[in-house]
Amino acid sequence: MTIFSKIINGEIPCYKVAENDQFFAFLDIRPMTKGHTLVVPKVETDYLFDLPTDMLAEMMVFAKQVAVAIKATVPCKRVGVAVLGMEVPHAHIHLVPLNKESDLSFLNSPVELSSEEMAGIASAIAAAM
Amino acid sequence: MTIFSKIINGEIPCYKVAENDQFFAFLDIRPMTKGHTLVVPKVETDYLFDLPTDMLAEMMVFAKQVAVAIKATVPCKRVGVAVLGMEVPHAHIHLVPLNKESDLSFLNSPVELSSEEMAGIASAIAAAM
Repeated sequence: MTIFSKIINGEIPCYKVAENDQFFAFLDIRPMTKGHTLVVPKVETDYLFDLPTDMLAEMMVFAKQVAVAIKATVPCKRVGVAVLGMEVPHAHIHLVPLNKESDLSFLNSPVELSSEEMAGIASAIAAAM
Repeated sequence: MTIFSKIINGEIPCYKVAENDQFFAFLDIRPMTKGHTLVVPKVETDYLFDLPTDMLAEMMVFAKQVAVAIKATVPCKRVGVAVLGMEVPHAHIHLVPLNKESDLSFLNSPVELSSEEMAGIASAIAAAM
């Protein structure tokens, strides 16, 4: 079972943002910027483009809903999107609030946020859904 | 009219990869890696998540078809996805062949490829569609 399935099942705690029957969204614990969120399918699929076409389409629509809530909560110009999938074998879409292009880089050091700040951001985004 | 609309209309040349009634795909002329492709909607919309929901879903399905053709053509572990949209006000999805996570960075210098190489890559991906 992947770490993301353990998060979805509640075996590992997370700062949850949103959930429906197929997908789950929670804060990245190594945020590139404040509000950086991961969207994952509940079904374990390694590679995003291996998802069934219908599910891929629905995942993007769910990601849009989360992105709109992030944009309404976190000051930013755009919510950027990234999918790499080299580390955890469970497809995930990064949604990253951006003020400039260089904000989206996996080479950047994570932003340091306290547990209280992370919980506050997650509940604010969840409330905007 | 955006530079991407001029490319779609044929006013500006490009290394075209694929097209259907709604979307257009062509090589990025500043490729992060060999095979780096942009997918754009024919309708001019600044921000990806401002597209109508149906079109957003269909664009992701089209992007998957292009990604599968890229993967079949260019040696890579994955085709990564990125959307930033800070430069050109016409929504676009970057599809980037990846062998390691750091291959996807807008801070990297573009790969140098000749016109002949670019044309060859584009036609090989187009043939795999």
